[in-house]
Amino acid sequence: MMLNKFLIVLLVMLFSPLSMMVSGWDNGLARRPPMGWLSWMRFACEIDCQTYPDECINEKLYKDMIDRLVDDGYLKAGYQYVNIDDCWMAMQRDPKTFRLLPNQTRFPSGIDGLAEYAHSKNVLLGLYEDIGTLTCARYPGTYYQGKDHTYIDAETFSDWKIDSIKVDGCYADNKQFNITYVEYSKALSEVEHKILYGCSWPFFKQDFSDNDYELIRKSCNLWRQFNDIFDSYQSVKGIIDLMGKHNEQFRRYHGPGGWFDPDMLIIGNYGLSLEQSKTQMAFWCMWSAPLLMSNDLRSIRPEMKEILLNKELIAIDQDPLGIMAKKISIKSNSHQVWVKKLSKSSDHDKHHPYAILYFNSEQLGSPKYISYRLSSLIDDDEATTNKTIEYDVYDLFGKTKNESYLETINSEQNLRLKVPTSGSVRIVKLLPKNI
Amino acid sequence: MMLNKFLIVLLVMLFSPLSMMVSGWDNGLARRPPMGWLSWMRFACEIDCQTYPDECINEKLYKDMIDRLVDDGYLKAGYQYVNIDDCWMAMQRDPKTFRLLPNQTRFPSGIDGLAEYAHSKNVLLGLYEDIGTLTCARYPGTYYQGKDHTYIDAETFSDWKIDSIKVDGCYADNKQFNITYVEYSKALSEVEHKILYGCSWPFFKQDFSDNDYELIRKSCNLWRQFNDIFDSYQSVKGIIDLMGKHNEQFRRYHGPGGWFDPDMLIIGNYGLSLEQSKTQMAFWCMWSAPLLMSNDLRSIRPEMKEILLNKELIAIDQDPLGIMAKKISIKSNSHQVWVKKLSKSSDHDKHHPYAILYFNSEQLGSPKYISYRLSSLIDDDEATTNKTIEYDVYDLFGKTKNESYLETINSEQNLRLKVPTSGSVRIVKLLPKNI
Repeated sequence: MMLNKFLIVLLVMLFSPLSMMVSGWDNGLARRPPMGWLSWMRFACEIDCQTYPDECINEKLYKDMIDRLVDDGYLKAGYQYVNIDDCWMAMQRDPKTFRLLPNQTRFPSGIDGLAEYAHSKNVLLGLYEDIGTLTCARYPGTYYQGKDHTYIDAETFSDWKIDSIKVDGCYADNKQFNITYVEYSKALSEVEHKILYGCSWPFFKQDFSDNDYELIRKSCNLWRQFNDIFDSYQSVKGIIDLMGKHNEQFRRYHGPGGWFDPDMLIIGNYGLSLEQSKTQMAFWCMWSAPLLMSNDLRSIRPEMKEILLNKELIAIDQDPLGIMAKKISIKSNSHQVWVKKLSKSSDHDKHHPYAILYFNSEQLGSPKYISYRLSSLIDDDEATTNKTIEYDVYDLFGKTKNESYLETINSEQNLRLKVPTSGSVRIVKLLPKNI
Repeated sequence: MMLNKFLIVLLVMLFSPLSMMVSGWDNGLARRPPMGWLSWMRFACEIDCQTYPDECINEKLYKDMIDRLVDDGYLKAGYQYVNIDDCWMAMQRDPKTFRLLPNQTRFPSGIDGLAEYAHSKNVLLGLYEDIGTLTCARYPGTYYQGKDHTYIDAETFSDWKIDSIKVDGCYADNKQFNITYVEYSKALSEVEHKILYGCSWPFFKQDFSDNDYELIRKSCNLWRQFNDIFDSYQSVKGIIDLMGKHNEQFRRYHGPGGWFDPDMLIIGNYGLSLEQSKTQMAFWCMWSAPLLMSNDLRSIRPEMKEILLNKELIAIDQDPLGIMAKKISIKSNSHQVWVKKLSKSSDHDKHHPYAILYFNSEQLGSPKYISYRLSSLIDDDEATTNKTIEYDVYDLFGKTKNESYLETINSEQNLRLKVPTSGSVRIVKLLPKNI
């Protein structure tokens, strides 16, 4: 057991781009990208529980989602967190203790009561705060009325046994983020209960310079980089393009302990087609991104649920190396090719498995073949020069292991896949043959 | 029989906005918006039949679609045309007769052979040409090599027994369209076989002034107004917004014999979600738009097929009055309300039925209620002043007549419907009670 752990750490150090880089914040959390559910995109700040009893931000909503997570197989698949977002608070802090208070009508059992309910079902509970004077929806922030409540809040969250906190960046001075977000991290590390720390820091800086990421990675377990996601393909495509544009830079700071967060999975709502839903899942998993669904698990269509529970894809996301896929430079405006090195299944393996994704954003015409020579895509350091490697190719949206086998090709052959249009992907796993 | 026809004509004259306007081109065709299938959006100009044997522009593709139309219930539902688009021709006209020639390899039976096949199955065949020197994909146009082939082509199409022609506007002088497109109309009216005439005239003029539409309506059975549709919600939304912006103007020229064509139905491809697919179908039917699917009927998902075969919606589209729905002016950027007056089912009816559509383009949050007082939406001339009218309300995406009944409300009550987000609609039919 100990030896295995040691080996994994060694492998991570050897093969992750992080080994030559900064290490993540060592609070022991988020060694794999966090998985769970977050209310924002789907339920936003609806607080009218009279008109919308099933959709307003209240205790019932989160209990419903905790139940669905457990009863419908999401928890078993790895989705562990149910995260509250903005609009859970009372409009003021406690006038005596300065502690945050939940809205009493909508959260009669308190956040601690909700956490207890979650934990009784092995679900972890996440909460939301903001590094500014107010949250984005104008509830009390960390610096409410100009006073720093960082340590009080960390204590409160620990007392409530909150397992994760998303710290937003509205109504704040973003020039102070290198201080305020770092102080928050320190406060969280000093309290009793372990709390996963998600920062909106780089998004609100709107700054892609290298310097910050080293500090961000040392301070946060995950961090938002881009605008909020909306329920549309256009929004997903914008994120894909941003992640592509900054791929070389981002990859260096991404890995166990600290993760770029391209925002919530919107699969199961109204804006994505079936193929586009597969696309979001595939990209997020190729990136080893946090997988935080924002949807209504009580009324999700079965084909969308199937995508969210795809074991093979989740394994790609949760691969111990935690590598963000590399975008391959090709001459095309309508196609993209991404490649991700995966961990070996055992020490005896000579070569790494890979995941390869072809993306077709053309919006006219029928499905088209995309084809590249394997050796131009993968970069297997251990490959002996001039020796070809054979791979079994599996379609990660195949129904079963047997059905998903496509072919066996060697590294000097082309991987040729027919890809539908309009934001569709094909994603395959290459398993090396030990010859 | 004759009396009924007379009554319908009378009703159209009385209640259609067209009665006070120009009349359509009287070739007897397109008294209802044409319905069928058109290859462009889905199959574009793929001519590599080696690589894409099932998706290239050839005889097999159109025969396949004719078969699907007949065997899968589309013809029975009203979809009558299978329309060829660009890239069917040989690269040159016949050097002696100057007639157009099909590509021999891809259309070995000729277009006449394909028409014969279609007609043997009660399907109508449509073809494509361009008013310029070349088609958009650079095949021979009407004015190929500077010479006018309008009459030769009309003869050819009639000889081949083509039932519909789409005349595009690439490589042409759009200042001449008032002459060239009108001449084309005259040529078609003089040949033996009746040919439905679709013009791209106003699109290529990019001109929304009133003058043209009178002439366009006198010359064409349908006319394209906007950019080509693509397989995306963004494209559909752009068309909805354009149709809204020019609604008052467009409505005046739209009706039996001549129709604004917002372009193909892209339902059943890869770019629209289930709700967005319902949205396209609902809007197109509210507008009494031509319903020309561009998809692969051989591999369409059942829930998408169900939308395309929705009888209630098709009846809205094909309503004898042929009225383009009216966009109601409301104070909202994310909601739209459209209302369409429908024909009475019998002379004895006091009031008209209506179709009402609520559209929600918000891309964040959960489904929301939209609610308006009926009397602020409908405009029933026959309503006695101060008398309320009672309506039975039916959900047009309800599964069956029984399941689709929602409620009975009177004209002074609110029509309140919960509408999903991200480009979703709710569409209802109001049946007046004869009290």
